[in-house]
Amino acid sequence: MKPIEAAAVVRYTREDGLAEALRGADALFLYDFLSTALRAAWSAADRLRWVHIASAGVDPVLFPALRDSDVVLTNSRGVFDDSIAEYVLGVILAFAKDFARSVDLQRQGRWLHRETERIAGKRVLVVGTGPIGRTIARMLRAAGMSVSGMGRRARDDDPDFGTVYSSAELTRHLSGMDYVVAVAPLTEQTKGMFDAEAFAAMKPGARFVNVGRGELVVTSDLIDALRAGRPAAAALDVFDTEPLPPDSPLWTMEGVLVSPHMSGDVIGWRTTLVELFAENFQRWQSGRPLRNVVNKQLGYVPSGD
Amino acid sequence: MKPIEAAAVVRYTREDGLAEALRGADALFLYDFLSTALRAAWSAADRLRWVHIASAGVDPVLFPALRDSDVVLTNSRGVFDDSIAEYVLGVILAFAKDFARSVDLQRQGRWLHRETERIAGKRVLVVGTGPIGRTIARMLRAAGMSVSGMGRRARDDDPDFGTVYSSAELTRHLSGMDYVVAVAPLTEQTKGMFDAEAFAAMKPGARFVNVGRGELVVTSDLIDALRAGRPAAAALDVFDTEPLPPDSPLWTMEGVLVSPHMSGDVIGWRTTLVELFAENFQRWQSGRPLRNVVNKQLGYVPSGD
Repeated sequence: MKPIEAAAVVRYTREDGLAEALRGADALFLYDFLSTALRAAWSAADRLRWVHIASAGVDPVLFPALRDSDVVLTNSRGVFDDSIAEYVLGVILAFAKDFARSVDLQRQGRWLHRETERIAGKRVLVVGTGPIGRTIARMLRAAGMSVSGMGRRARDDDPDFGTVYSSAELTRHLSGMDYVVAVAPLTEQTKGMFDAEAFAAMKPGARFVNVGRGELVVTSDLIDALRAGRPAAAALDVFDTEPLPPDSPLWTMEGVLVSPHMSGDVIGWRTTLVELFAENFQRWQSGRPLRNVVNKQLGYVPSGD
Repeated sequence: MKPIEAAAVVRYTREDGLAEALRGADALFLYDFLSTALRAAWSAADRLRWVHIASAGVDPVLFPALRDSDVVLTNSRGVFDDSIAEYVLGVILAFAKDFARSVDLQRQGRWLHRETERIAGKRVLVVGTGPIGRTIARMLRAAGMSVSGMGRRARDDDPDFGTVYSSAELTRHLSGMDYVVAVAPLTEQTKGMFDAEAFAAMKPGARFVNVGRGELVVTSDLIDALRAGRPAAAALDVFDTEPLPPDSPLWTMEGVLVSPHMSGDVIGWRTTLVELFAENFQRWQSGRPLRNVVNKQLGYVPSGD
């Protein structure tokens, strides 16, 4: 933050001091990207022109007053793409090679040979065609998987996905998939899209991966669906309540991998996040176009998807 | 085995009946590929001309009497390449993304965010340049890793590895590697090649993967080396004694992933193994050249490496 401190008055605050710090501020760097404190502090934003958020998802700040204002919103698109793609390939391999069971058996000191699965040729649907979804698609394809996408507009000539199905037809296209990866932005349209009906459309044995937002899923429906075996397994890095509450059945369900919202967070990520903000700050200061300007009506940075 | 039973008298036996079954037999399909019973039964092999083994490694049958005989030895080269390559990519991602810890924390119901690692750009040395090593190299490279190989002959123009170092210079080339993957055939030259000296040459933080044979490693040296932090971690699918004895420290050491010699064994592998033998049987019966003829002096099927 040194270059920014040299060029501007910088105030650092926690959630409870946000309203006070916001008064008179021109720009806000929302480093705690899951904080919803901005909504309550909004009336103090008397000269705010720009909000930058340290995440790809902008759902926590898309309350009506900000959405309908002239305040420019930028996100940290790009920082997490490669890390999350590696993570998704990792959990798919963990499922196919039965790694969680290997860890459990090792802890018990048991030598138990099992037959495992190939991932090559398996069908994956990536729900969300932004940069993270695209990077996931390229990575899984390079590992021999058969990948398609799901986005707002159906097409057959996407450079990364080949075929993209329309999310309006989600349930219709779930049935043939071995893996379903949720990485869509959380918007009014995508909230709860993975519900009882969607899970019932999956084939027995299908596995579900969520590296997007917990609220893409109706959690109680997912728990029921896992009990019914569709999906057969799930790798969940995000939850509608975080940290995942201690009494959630997801902690102990067979076939469920729980991780604490960390799929994109590789060593050095905080530096990368601040560098991206610093670059945008220089652009902003010199009047150049900002990077990663969110379309606040859509809820993400549009890229023709 | 139906087509073979139609064309030949087939005797099925366990280890203790091998000598009796071997008398008068022209060919032997050694399905239990880790069995060393053939050596003791060898004097009963009064007309044996061909031995086929259901594995890529032929070390259990390379005793002097067979090696110096005219009996042709073929192996199951090719059956395991893709599965083992996926497995190796999987354990590398499991290390980078700290999956074993995630499983342990989940079992404890603990939500503990950690920063993890990228695999892209990390340096991997694949020791063994046969078909399995080559498939591993292609797969890791497709995932963005920087891969080199180690084989009998150094060169800079290998189609899969780019650079191949000479195994005579193992310790010299270990120091820069983030991951070292052992997949060499077990021969007099490779036995115990990963010893105290080799591990001491690894950099702190390096991780070791063994999907070859346990005897490539001096196990007590590996245990000492892990305690000293070089390598920092190991994924071990093979051991000099299998099953791994209950009192082995490897079961409980921090950073060690133990799996029960299963990296190549995907659903359907037994069928694939028998099909390969059946194809070779038809070739043998009709006098055509066999596939996968082992050079018994080298200890593997040569391919110009």
